[in-house]
Amino acid sequence: MPDSTVKATAEDLAAFIARCLRAAGVGADDAATVGAIMSEADVNGSDGHGVFRLPQYVRRIQAGGMAARADITTVRETSATALIDGGNGLGHLTVKHAVELAMDKAAETGVAWVGTRNSNHAGPAGTYARMALARDMIGIYMAVGNANHLPPWGGTEMLLSTNPIAVAIPAMDEPPVALDMATTVAAYGKVKTKAQRGEMMPEGWMIDALGNSLTDPKRADDGFLLPIGGAKGYGLALVFGLLAGTLNGAAFGKDVVDFNADDTSVTNTGQMIIALNVQAFADVDQFKRQVDEVIRQLHASPTMPGVDAIRIPGEHAHAVRAERRRSGIPIHAVLFEKLEALAAELGVPGIVP
Amino acid sequence: MPDSTVKATAEDLAAFIARCLRAAGVGADDAATVGAIMSEADVNGSDGHGVFRLPQYVRRIQAGGMAARADITTVRETSATALIDGGNGLGHLTVKHAVELAMDKAAETGVAWVGTRNSNHAGPAGTYARMALARDMIGIYMAVGNANHLPPWGGTEMLLSTNPIAVAIPAMDEPPVALDMATTVAAYGKVKTKAQRGEMMPEGWMIDALGNSLTDPKRADDGFLLPIGGAKGYGLALVFGLLAGTLNGAAFGKDVVDFNADDTSVTNTGQMIIALNVQAFADVDQFKRQVDEVIRQLHASPTMPGVDAIRIPGEHAHAVRAERRRSGIPIHAVLFEKLEALAAELGVPGIVP
Repeated sequence: MPDSTVKATAEDLAAFIARCLRAAGVGADDAATVGAIMSEADVNGSDGHGVFRLPQYVRRIQAGGMAARADITTVRETSATALIDGGNGLGHLTVKHAVELAMDKAAETGVAWVGTRNSNHAGPAGTYARMALARDMIGIYMAVGNANHLPPWGGTEMLLSTNPIAVAIPAMDEPPVALDMATTVAAYGKVKTKAQRGEMMPEGWMIDALGNSLTDPKRADDGFLLPIGGAKGYGLALVFGLLAGTLNGAAFGKDVVDFNADDTSVTNTGQMIIALNVQAFADVDQFKRQVDEVIRQLHASPTMPGVDAIRIPGEHAHAVRAERRRSGIPIHAVLFEKLEALAAELGVPGIVP
Repeated sequence: MPDSTVKATAEDLAAFIARCLRAAGVGADDAATVGAIMSEADVNGSDGHGVFRLPQYVRRIQAGGMAARADITTVRETSATALIDGGNGLGHLTVKHAVELAMDKAAETGVAWVGTRNSNHAGPAGTYARMALARDMIGIYMAVGNANHLPPWGGTEMLLSTNPIAVAIPAMDEPPVALDMATTVAAYGKVKTKAQRGEMMPEGWMIDALGNSLTDPKRADDGFLLPIGGAKGYGLALVFGLLAGTLNGAAFGKDVVDFNADDTSVTNTGQMIIALNVQAFADVDQFKRQVDEVIRQLHASPTMPGVDAIRIPGEHAHAVRAERRRSGIPIHAVLFEKLEALAAELGVPGIVP
């Protein structure tokens, strides 16, 4: 990344995020929690979901669209399920609470499903699925995306979002299998990045209202994202949205607030997490060794011409994490300027004090 | 379907399947159960997963690869989970048992996850997800496919199958949302159908070992199915396989038996079902009305040129079901001949006795 000017450690970045959030009115413990989760997104290479989002979150709190301090409450509960109301606070707090509750329940019942409503954008899906790994559990996370860019298949009205799924499965000596994907070919953030850089998009990312390929990201407002596998990806975006949104009494379809364009309306974001206790199905070590074996079979496959290696979901993030823990998180010059301006506005020290 | 010669009612078809299975050694109750499930697949338009599979199942029982009579046992169990061993009997019996157990558990705990091992091919994924609807539950089903036709993304060794997912979500006045999809662009059965008919495949279904598009289905043995969304569909096929196979101690990766080519090896098929009790999250009627509302929003979207209507997952099968319940299930002449020959061989009356 030749145009990046600053590298920060995860700890410095987490502390910076926390002091900005504190200055915006978030409680000290909550600010530290969110700082740690957001900087972890940057460590993992999810550059569009970590500190990049901080100015937007602060703006949203200041505009009254998101609560700086919120009570997380339990709306419904059974031995293996719960529905959580995030009180319109930071999504990271609500979802972390949901994951911990799901893991506590799954330790007793084998599996648990916890849904959220009145939550907010919570960063990368993979963060929450991966939290289950520490307790030898499998995590499955789905969310309603915070802006509709996807019409139903064959349609032109944007009623669906990139509704992601993340699945994390523990392994023994290999890195865990950690899938984290939008149900569209490209996430909308990638389109915005292409526009910023003045680059064209590859075919297959977007189409226009006539169904023609759209490759100029400056024309993105005239087009829609394409779902993976056509009608199939549309089907996945729909059912993930019903499970993470509608079931929880959270926004879906027309009710979704475009949080990039609107700082004041309550998003009523919905998410869901399944925690599955491996021990309920198998000897944990034996299972992890079998996952290793599958990973090794895949790695050993001969490759197509031009392909250097077979990749396992999560492997790239795992490598980025190791590199960034070693040598720091690169912060692009444009983003760095914005963050320094935010710190000045909030009256707190910048990233590298 | 101008070349079909016979139409059968669902009841006649179910009875025919049951008497063939009985003649092959399956117990009377089990044969009736499987007959009903298989004929329901035909009623729903899953023509490649209903009576079409009967000759193969009978051949497999006769060759010793599948048990005509099997005990279904519980290997592990918690309040919200179970691991079931199908005893290498018909997959339909094992999975139906798993779904019923999951629903009984979810009625108590809110959600349940039941996995299977030592099962067999069980027909369309959607069948089992939809079983949850009768109890106002949401069903989620995944399975390891019974033949590997998919390499890891960028690779050339076929280590993965079309591992499907099905999700069924109840609605009020609208048909339920019922997604049932392979993680590949096309299921392998569609390739075989194209070959039989002497037609070419569209681009995007298969590639050859050099990564070039493969459109001649007679060359299918030289190529691989393509996953939806490239690396994303590969990731889905992998995690669905780990969840439905490896976790349950069922076959995955190199251990998967190609049940089209091999009638004698035990397949050790794995499947999994989640039953989620809507009532644990919402008032059931209110939720169903909200699902209706989402469906109506999607239906009301303007369409692209050339698109007659927006479709909801499961809507097409719902229409086929209504039509076939009214006017019977068309049985293609070639298949009808095979089924009559099977009946003669087993010494039982044919479809229309």
